[in-house]
Amino acid sequence: MPFQSRKDQFHLPIGMIYLDGNSLGPLPRAAADRVGRTMVDEWGDMLITGWNKAGWMAQPMALGDRIGRLIGAEAGHVTLGDTLSIKVFQALSAALAMTDRKVILSDSGNFPSDLYIAEGLIRAFDRDLELRVVAPEDVAAHITDEVAVLMLTQVDYRTGRLHDMAALTAQAQAAGIVTVWDLAHSAGALAVDVAGCNADFAVGCTYKYLNGGPGAPAFIYVAPRHAQTAAPVLAGWLGHDAPFAFEPTYRPGEGVARMRVGTPPVIQMAALEAAMDVWDGVDMTDIRDASITLTQRFIAGVEAACPQLELASPRDPQTRGSQVSFRHAEGYAAMQACIAHGVVGDFRAPDIMRFGFTPLFIDEGDVDAAVAVIARVMNEKLWDDPQFQARSAVT
Amino acid sequence: MPFQSRKDQFHLPIGMIYLDGNSLGPLPRAAADRVGRTMVDEWGDMLITGWNKAGWMAQPMALGDRIGRLIGAEAGHVTLGDTLSIKVFQALSAALAMTDRKVILSDSGNFPSDLYIAEGLIRAFDRDLELRVVAPEDVAAHITDEVAVLMLTQVDYRTGRLHDMAALTAQAQAAGIVTVWDLAHSAGALAVDVAGCNADFAVGCTYKYLNGGPGAPAFIYVAPRHAQTAAPVLAGWLGHDAPFAFEPTYRPGEGVARMRVGTPPVIQMAALEAAMDVWDGVDMTDIRDASITLTQRFIAGVEAACPQLELASPRDPQTRGSQVSFRHAEGYAAMQACIAHGVVGDFRAPDIMRFGFTPLFIDEGDVDAAVAVIARVMNEKLWDDPQFQARSAVT
Repeated sequence: MPFQSRKDQFHLPIGMIYLDGNSLGPLPRAAADRVGRTMVDEWGDMLITGWNKAGWMAQPMALGDRIGRLIGAEAGHVTLGDTLSIKVFQALSAALAMTDRKVILSDSGNFPSDLYIAEGLIRAFDRDLELRVVAPEDVAAHITDEVAVLMLTQVDYRTGRLHDMAALTAQAQAAGIVTVWDLAHSAGALAVDVAGCNADFAVGCTYKYLNGGPGAPAFIYVAPRHAQTAAPVLAGWLGHDAPFAFEPTYRPGEGVARMRVGTPPVIQMAALEAAMDVWDGVDMTDIRDASITLTQRFIAGVEAACPQLELASPRDPQTRGSQVSFRHAEGYAAMQACIAHGVVGDFRAPDIMRFGFTPLFIDEGDVDAAVAVIARVMNEKLWDDPQFQARSAVT
Repeated sequence: MPFQSRKDQFHLPIGMIYLDGNSLGPLPRAAADRVGRTMVDEWGDMLITGWNKAGWMAQPMALGDRIGRLIGAEAGHVTLGDTLSIKVFQALSAALAMTDRKVILSDSGNFPSDLYIAEGLIRAFDRDLELRVVAPEDVAAHITDEVAVLMLTQVDYRTGRLHDMAALTAQAQAAGIVTVWDLAHSAGALAVDVAGCNADFAVGCTYKYLNGGPGAPAFIYVAPRHAQTAAPVLAGWLGHDAPFAFEPTYRPGEGVARMRVGTPPVIQMAALEAAMDVWDGVDMTDIRDASITLTQRFIAGVEAACPQLELASPRDPQTRGSQVSFRHAEGYAAMQACIAHGVVGDFRAPDIMRFGFTPLFIDEGDVDAAVAVIARVMNEKLWDDPQFQARSAVT
């Protein structure tokens, strides 16, 4: 249990094995006090002076650096705010402004919202842009000099399939393509290295593996070589070079700070700050090693006990993120039964039972206990149990 | 003191008269507990099930209705999320999609961020759009059939000058123009009536007069006649008709719900919910009456005591929002001295001392006490006092 001291820092409901930290991370114990202080000592007592005195205005860049360390970003090149969809829009629109080509290449394993954002942008920008969505395994073959932007989510939210970020980025850049990486299921889960991969833009959320809480702000990374030229389409005042000069005309701020838009979410940032404290001193290669140990143990355990479950995730841990998915025709009902019996994963249509592994608070004992529950649920078809159904009906 | 019972519901630092609620409203006493419950009982204990069990997913529309009541919106036509700059972008881009005309008309009294957002949008949309910024008093004369969208902030953030929203909307619509109103300094300050004015789009923030806290989310209103056709350029998954079906293609949600983008800011919403509880049962015409009484009393008091201050706000309360601004060459230093002596307003370049009046927690006694402090500061030039300067240097 390499992260026991971290596990102790989370509020984890008794009797629950929470394998859904890839959807919403759990509450860091210190977060409630931290938020309480921001509410009363900062907002309550400092009022408007909190923007400077309490450092609210500086938080998006300060927290950006702490997240930046976990994704291999250069200091000063990550900022925080808004939601991931907005950050995807910012990255994609800035990437498109760097090229006259027309094709946005993505894959069908991308999170739908990223594709929706591209669609909305294409409808609004009068540039004959085209969104080309291919199967994940066909991406490399579609990297041609027609493509303007390669926009991918590194880890497939359903299967956990992991793209080779370094290889695809290199191949794309050799073809003159700008890259936008969505790290929603990577940040805090893998040893991402945006600088080492030479990524152009990267975005992600902080409420999954980073444990920033429901509604926690998103982040955006702009490579240093683009930071002073990237076009901020969402040109908000906090991305201005001098927000409090109230100049009539927009001048983009220094570097990635231009990707700030409106007033930062101070209370959400306080929760995220407490969450980032838990990450202090954690090495992402240790997390990745622990994650592989956990997912391998889980797959071995489930496959030995439940032959009726079909592995939907890659078997090779090197091509898998920090989640394991199994297919089953009655997956929805089966997952409800697992949850009712204390193992919380989630279900993704049409037949995917998804389990996330988060080494900060899940250890091998949890994996073994989860396998035992899943085995009982699947082998005894507990979802058919009238007692369970009666319970489900009232919850 | 018509709102004494409301005043008691705020955490107001002792010895401070807070005339800056038009910048950041104070902490509602119940908000800290409300947020604490969301942190521990909801996020902590419910984890992922909080999205449904705790009603997080429904909050943006529920809170939208509570704000809608204060701005005269039809139920179900306001939603919440993101920041005001993002909501301006959404409203402006949707308005532009309704017309082939090229001119966005605004005024130099608009908040700069709204103009920046228009500039960013114009650069990105390849449509030969033009941002035409005129003096506030010249807006009516520039309403021609060349204009696509009239985008105005109802109350000038520096002077408090109030546009006649009903008259300008009617004039604009007669010329085939779509209207976008920014209610940042109106919501919770005036008896706004977006439905009665026939406004097309309206947006606003909730951290000023509504007291939602630093980083509180923004709101957007789309007139019912546009709700099913308005184009969501920021096409995020929570604006999709079926977000959890994870369909590959975007289908806009029902009505204004399509203006939702990403995951809602759950913790900020909890604070805002407590703030909206204070508004329950408050009639905006009573607020407006009280506000006029306070601002008239303040102007009379300051003008009688401080002939060196020049009124920068309209003298007629019917053309003034809920703030009063005075000009003074040494306004910055003078405001610092006022703050040091317990009267908190703020300064806007080049020479504006700005005071906001928020009847929920400011009463006539506060006005008289503030006038006495301001009179002493101005007449004794307290900012020249070496003792004050020494104090200022360390804070």
